Amino acid sequence: MFEHQMKWRSKKAGLPPGSYVFLGEKRQEEIQLNLMTYNETDFEFRNIEKIEDAVDYKEKTDVTWVNIYGLHDIDLLKKIETAFTIHPLVLEDVLNTTQRPKIEIYDDYVFAVIKMIYYDAEEAEISTEQISIILQNNFIICFQERKGDIFHALRERIKNSVGRIRKNQADYLAYAIMDVIVDNYFSVLEKLSDHIEMLDEEVSDNPEPEMAQKINMLKRTLLMLRKNTWPLREMIHQIARDENPQFRKSTIPFLRDLYDHTVQVIDTTENYWEMASGLKDMYMSMVSNRMNEVMKVLTIIATIFIPLSFIAGVYGMNFDTGASPFNMPELSFTFGYPLFWLLCIAIGGGLLFLFKRKNWL
Amino acid sequence: MFEHQMKWRSKKAGLPPGSYVFLGEKRQEEIQLNLMTYNETDFEFRNIEKIEDAVDYKEKTDVTWVNIYGLHDIDLLKKIETAFTIHPLVLEDVLNTTQRPKIEIYDDYVFAVIKMIYYDAEEAEISTEQISIILQNNFIICFQERKGDIFHALRERIKNSVGRIRKNQADYLAYAIMDVIVDNYFSVLEKLSDHIEMLDEEVSDNPEPEMAQKINMLKRTLLMLRKNTWPLREMIHQIARDENPQFRKSTIPFLRDLYDHTVQVIDTTENYWEMASGLKDMYMSMVSNRMNEVMKVLTIIATIFIPLSFIAGVYGMNFDTGASPFNMPELSFTFGYPLFWLLCIAIGGGLLFLFKRKNWL
Amino acid sequence: MFEHQMKWRSKKAGLPPGSYVFLGEKRQEEIQLNLMTYNETDFEFRNIEKIEDAVDYKEKTDVTWVNIYGLHDIDLLKKIETAFTIHPLVLEDVLNTTQRPKIEIYDDYVFAVIKMIYYDAEEAEISTEQISIILQNNFIICFQERKGDIFHALRERIKNSVGRIRKNQADYLAYAIMDVIVDNYFSVLEKLSDHIEMLDEEVSDNPEPEMAQKINMLKRTLLMLRKNTWPLREMIHQIARDENPQFRKSTIPFLRDLYDHTVQVIDTTENYWEMASGLKDMYMSMVSNRMNEVMKVLTIIATIFIPLSFIAGVYGMNFDTGASPFNMPELSFTFGYPLFWLLCIAIGGGLLFLFKRKNWL
Amino acid sequence: MFEHQMKWRSKKAGLPPGSYVFLGEKRQEEIQLNLMTYNETDFEFRNIEKIEDAVDYKEKTDVTWVNIYGLHDIDLLKKIETAFTIHPLVLEDVLNTTQRPKIEIYDDYVFAVIKMIYYDAEEAEISTEQISIILQNNFIICFQERKGDIFHALRERIKNSVGRIRKNQADYLAYAIMDVIVDNYFSVLEKLSDHIEMLDEEVSDNPEPEMAQKINMLKRTLLMLRKNTWPLREMIHQIARDENPQFRKSTIPFLRDLYDHTVQVIDTTENYWEMASGLKDMYMSMVSNRMNEVMKVLTIIATIFIPLSFIAGVYGMNFDTGASPFNMPELSFTFGYPLFWLLCIAIGGGLLFLFKRKNWL
Amino acid sequence: MFEHQMKWRSKKAGLPPGSYVFLGEKRQEEIQLNLMTYNETDFEFRNIEKIEDAVDYKEKTDVTWVNIYGLHDIDLLKKIETAFTIHPLVLEDVLNTTQRPKIEIYDDYVFAVIKMIYYDAEEAEISTEQISIILQNNFIICFQERKGDIFHALRERIKNSVGRIRKNQADYLAYAIMDVIVDNYFSVLEKLSDHIEMLDEEVSDNPEPEMAQKINMLKRTLLMLRKNTWPLREMIHQIARDENPQFRKSTIPFLRDLYDHTVQVIDTTENYWEMASGLKDMYMSMVSNRMNEVMKVLTIIATIFIPLSFIAGVYGMNFDTGASPFNMPELSFTFGYPLFWLLCIAIGGGLLFLFKRKNWL
Repeated sequence: MFEHQMKWRSKKAGLPPGSYVFLGEKRQEEIQLNLMTYNETDFEFRNIEKIEDAVDYKEKTDVTWVNIYGLHDIDLLKKIETAFTIHPLVLEDVLNTTQRPKIEIYDDYVFAVIKMIYYDAEEAEISTEQISIILQNNFIICFQERKGDIFHALRERIKNSVGRIRKNQADYLAYAIMDVIVDNYFSVLEKLSDHIEMLDEEVSDNPEPEMAQKINMLKRTLLMLRKNTWPLREMIHQIARDENPQFRKSTIPFLRDLYDHTVQVIDTTENYWEMASGLKDMYMSMVSNRMNEVMKVLTIIATIFIPLSFIAGVYGMNFDTGASPFNMPELSFTFGYPLFWLLCIAIGGGLLFLFKRKNWL
Repeated sequence: MFEHQMKWRSKKAGLPPGSYVFLGEKRQEEIQLNLMTYNETDFEFRNIEKIEDAVDYKEKTDVTWVNIYGLHDIDLLKKIETAFTIHPLVLEDVLNTTQRPKIEIYDDYVFAVIKMIYYDAEEAEISTEQISIILQNNFIICFQERKGDIFHALRERIKNSVGRIRKNQADYLAYAIMDVIVDNYFSVLEKLSDHIEMLDEEVSDNPEPEMAQKINMLKRTLLMLRKNTWPLREMIHQIARDENPQFRKSTIPFLRDLYDHTVQVIDTTENYWEMASGLKDMYMSMVSNRMNEVMKVLTIIATIFIPLSFIAGVYGMNFDTGASPFNMPELSFTFGYPLFWLLCIAIGGGLLFLFKRKNWL
Repeated sequence: MFEHQMKWRSKKAGLPPGSYVFLGEKRQEEIQLNLMTYNETDFEFRNIEKIEDAVDYKEKTDVTWVNIYGLHDIDLLKKIETAFTIHPLVLEDVLNTTQRPKIEIYDDYVFAVIKMIYYDAEEAEISTEQISIILQNNFIICFQERKGDIFHALRERIKNSVGRIRKNQADYLAYAIMDVIVDNYFSVLEKLSDHIEMLDEEVSDNPEPEMAQKINMLKRTLLMLRKNTWPLREMIHQIARDENPQFRKSTIPFLRDLYDHTVQVIDTTENYWEMASGLKDMYMSMVSNRMNEVMKVLTIIATIFIPLSFIAGVYGMNFDTGASPFNMPELSFTFGYPLFWLLCIAIGGGLLFLFKRKNWL
Repeated sequence: MFEHQMKWRSKKAGLPPGSYVFLGEKRQEEIQLNLMTYNETDFEFRNIEKIEDAVDYKEKTDVTWVNIYGLHDIDLLKKIETAFTIHPLVLEDVLNTTQRPKIEIYDDYVFAVIKMIYYDAEEAEISTEQISIILQNNFIICFQERKGDIFHALRERIKNSVGRIRKNQADYLAYAIMDVIVDNYFSVLEKLSDHIEMLDEEVSDNPEPEMAQKINMLKRTLLMLRKNTWPLREMIHQIARDENPQFRKSTIPFLRDLYDHTVQVIDTTENYWEMASGLKDMYMSMVSNRMNEVMKVLTIIATIFIPLSFIAGVYGMNFDTGASPFNMPELSFTFGYPLFWLLCIAIGGGLLFLFKRKNWL
Repeated sequence: MFEHQMKWRSKKAGLPPGSYVFLGEKRQEEIQLNLMTYNETDFEFRNIEKIEDAVDYKEKTDVTWVNIYGLHDIDLLKKIETAFTIHPLVLEDVLNTTQRPKIEIYDDYVFAVIKMIYYDAEEAEISTEQISIILQNNFIICFQERKGDIFHALRERIKNSVGRIRKNQADYLAYAIMDVIVDNYFSVLEKLSDHIEMLDEEVSDNPEPEMAQKINMLKRTLLMLRKNTWPLREMIHQIARDENPQFRKSTIPFLRDLYDHTVQVIDTTENYWEMASGLKDMYMSMVSNRMNEVMKVLTIIATIFIPLSFIAGVYGMNFDTGASPFNMPELSFTFGYPLFWLLCIAIGGGLLFLFKRKNWL
């Protein structure tokens, strides 16, 4: 992941700032645009061919929301730059999908970059999509890297006029869009929670070496999540706190609510991080426990037999019993051999008893 | 625990903000309400059927405290929203039991969320109950997840007119309610202290592998406690410091006192955290000490017998003593065998002496 | 220690705030009071029976210092509350000996809580005594848990009129009392320094398993010291910085000096903490070094004898030398046995040489 | 690296501050100067012999950029000091190549020190070059330690009039210079990313002891990068935020953009740091896994054969079978020897089965 | 070191604040004083007998610098207190050589405490000397613990009128004195850098157990350096930032430069700390690598011979070959013994091959 980011960046090194270069993977072939416009009574939604079709709505009092899927059309951006008098650096940021989440408040518009998070449960990997939002009076332009259905429910909600959204202005819509994205973090967290639970069981059952790697992967995922949520919190805090002409006072409580949600996302992420660390500790101690057990049992077996082997060795010696009565008279005792076995059992049993008493077994 | 939080959250994803959805376990079947009202001379306490019975008290100068047990009655909330003109997001927060402790100061009311902590000593687990308080002039609405007796002593105190509470207004009552909750933290900490003491003894006596898990559990519990107390401190600091129309100046010293208590809770939690870390360190070093001891003693036994076995092996060799006078003449010495044993004792004793002198025993 | 704190707290749970309950061990049977009063020329010191004897001094221009040993007399406190119009929460804090060090500035008096530290060198344990000071114009009330001689030198100094103290007012006396307490921290630190030095030697000489526990104890002691000094620094900083009616401008430089001392106490405590960590590291590496050494030497002995045993085993085989000239002809060589020993010495010596060259010995 | 820095510094100890001593390696023999001057229509670029040739351009409205390669010409600096009235300490800082990145805003000029980073992929080492920039109205003096082509693309861009640069003033040029340097960090990060990927593979494949050292080297490199980027971020933040006469308001958005880039560099560096830590962990666990595996397999082999050897030893004993029927009658059983082998196989197999069941294989 | 500090402190416990007690080792027998006075044209330097000889210079416009070597003359301090109206706490701080670096700005003088650092390369130990400076208009009093030549070069510089120092006032001289002290830190750092390099080589070559202790010593030294440089940075920052009557505006840039130097000292110290940590890690992994290698090679040798010994043991058994044709017929095979050796070589070689393939050799 990180590697690609860097490749994209260096593609651009040497170019003048403010030049439009798409720094990302082209995630869909054709650029698509759609337009939604509504007020308390009317609602309209349709695909449009060119951005020019939307420009007229700029002056209307209706809320207008233009969605652009795909970022590689430089011409389109230039037209937006002119039609809405956006600073070129803003549109450059739209193209650079390695942006951190941020908000920039200009005199007559607000520009926000947020990351949509997708979690691939199979690969236990996270991928991000950059959503850029320009809010200018009653007009919202929203850039997505690819066509997806993430805002489908929101669109349906507006269409069916559920909730207070139709009575509010574009700033409330901007809030609603951000709310959808933040809500999506919760569903990712939920999937991660399943994944952690699964890892937890695997570690307890069978601490294989690859577990360490899986836990590392999880930590990397959480790091990435953290990297995207901290600036998100910061940016929402900024608009919820500072007065700015684009956000009405009535929307502030909702932004504060959104802020609470991002704090909750961060709290949960930190929690998971602690859990991942706990998992790692547990894995480490499982591995070392098992190793200790292996070493202990095996060494105990060895230790018992080493003195026994010595005794067997002694009675395998070839001292000349005929040469002297002191030379291994045991060998010709009537019960020499049974006594040897008794001795072995006594020594082995004694050691075992000792080990047991010392709690080594 | 965390898993449930996430499930609740994602239940709501896609719904418009401000919609009343109960995000929690339904902890009791039927919603119950009771109402207490008092001034310096009079006192009344009774169960009520519907919230409408309480609304009339809103304009009175008496202090009125309405308790609602159970959160799943959406209708009730809508009535409260209308009767007391509460912002919908506030009541949404009441329903969302995954809230962090927080205080929100509105123009004509204050909304506080606190967590009651219950400690199950058997399972060594903590569970929380969200208490939401709305303070509006002389009226307090208090939401609890289930009927319990946590405020029983407070209610008796008011009834029997002990202390200054009957002379004060609703802000003092709000303080008293929060005081009960914070006092409860101390009793949880006391139980935890017993648990830590027990773990401490267990670790010293018998460092079983499951100790690591128990200590981990303890740390998780402390983390959860910390997660709930830090924002609590923050919120009490906020009302104790900022002037606001709902809290009288005479109540501020009590809030500052409450603040001191939360700081003490946090200090103690941090202390316990250090102790849990100390326990873990101790467990680790107990385990490794025992392993070292096992390895050392066993290896020493092995080492002593290995040279002895070699010597026994030597005198078990079949060199042909008849073929040459150089071939193992020891075998036919008169005291060959006793000398062998002397040699063994000398070597074994010598090694033991060496080990002792090197402090390895 | 911590356990007691909690017990005391929960004794009080359920009681109204501001009720006087003594939360501590009763450290002496009878409450004792004494009174000192002085100005530049006169000096008087005597024990008094009841607090009423002191109240008259309240309006005098002389500096008056009332010392109260023992805290369990609730009546006494009620009288003080009335006579000096002290907020009940202040006197409640006096009784609660689990207080953190703090200062509270009221309109016409200042209330300070400090901890006196006692170090028991035998047990390597720290105990604290809570000293509460109320400064009201020229009157100081000082609460101690038990009668002790900690302020003896200060009293003598005032009596003998050494230093500038007799020329100053009660705020300077309050400073002098706090200075005595902070100076006492230095003597505790000195004792701790001896203890650390002793541990250092013990660890180097003989890293016994109980060392780990001793170092842990030391760390706990330092933690406790830190817990008491950080808020102390904070409170002195607060009175040295903020203007307040009780402390004259001429006393500020002395408070700043006191602040420097507390910073030095904290610095030294942090230093000791680093040293304790260093000790722990050293202990760990001593233990692992010793274990490594044990394992290494023993394994080397084992390794040398294992091949030798094999050779002895070979010549202990019973291949029928008569059946074939290929079967162990060595056994009937004239110098077979001496050659065997030569071989053993060569192999043993060769391995030893190899180990030496590889720096394993 | 660090060692040189110190040597340079101590060369200067004892000299008066503000004396010009070149504290660095002389990186090229001859000092070279070149001068570029342009406005929206004209462009000129040429090498110049002496700084006096450039001084005349000082008063012109054209943007003038003087580049000085090599720092050891003290005379040159004295001339600049006089001609542009620069504070001597500024020029002393130019000479001291151990400077941290910083910006100093004087009344009529701005002085910035930035570090160019070069990464030697072979040696996996980073080296830095100090670039000092003095911006005075429309005049930029830029000091480099050696002649290089780092600003070649920028110069071409200006020459060919691509982008908005020709329409802007010297402050934009200063920004553009800094932008080139920061862009260069991305290409270094890209190379580092390749290096990390390579290390990652090496660690997985073959965790040699030298890997630890390589990872340590990587961490040192990242530390150095961090040391240079944190103050860089700080300095860009400072000029982007504070109003100052040298930077026009129209340049601020570009500086903010540059600030975002440095934040991204820092984020990526922190990321790499986490990755390096992850690599180290992985290396450690690979090494310990392998060691565990070695120990386990070998100990298992040993354990199986130790009881077998004991049995073989038993039947090697020389108990006199003729002396008593109890003495080793097995030796003369018809199937004694095959039974011995059966016993061996049974014991060996049994142990293997046990190990397998305990998951030790 | 720390121990002495504490002893000194407790010497003083119980004494009134502001009493002059010398808290330090007496580092030289006799107090010595010298006086330097200069303006742009004149220069005078001489030893003086008593401080009274210097007092007259107080009112002159020349810069006067009085140096006092040795601190134990209480009378001298009392005279200074009176003659220059210095606060007694200031002079008490001069005597207390356990002071942290600090600056105190009084209405008509500035008091600074700095630590001179000496590094004993032999013992790898740092010692400090407290330098106290009082700057009052054009008069500087500088207290040193012992006579040394640290300011010799500075004095020569003034005498020979090199640099701008003769044209400046006493505040510049105070800066120059501090600059000498900070420059001295760089030379200490240079020596430490040599020491680190040496340790680095020693660790790579021969990781003896005492290395751990040496690295610990280095860390303690760095801690001590850090303890002295952080407050130094703070104090220089304070005078460089705040306007105060004693430091002229023209001296501020030099103080800012000095501030940069202290930051560089701190950066380098932090760097060395990281390096020391890296050394420790390297030492640890060297030790464990070596131990692993020892264990591995030795265990491999053991493992190969254990099965071989078993086989030798088998053929040493005394099964009665005459009793049954199944009893060890191998013993009488013609090539029995050579086959035994072949078997041994096959097993040993096979195991070696296996180990090699598993990369265990």
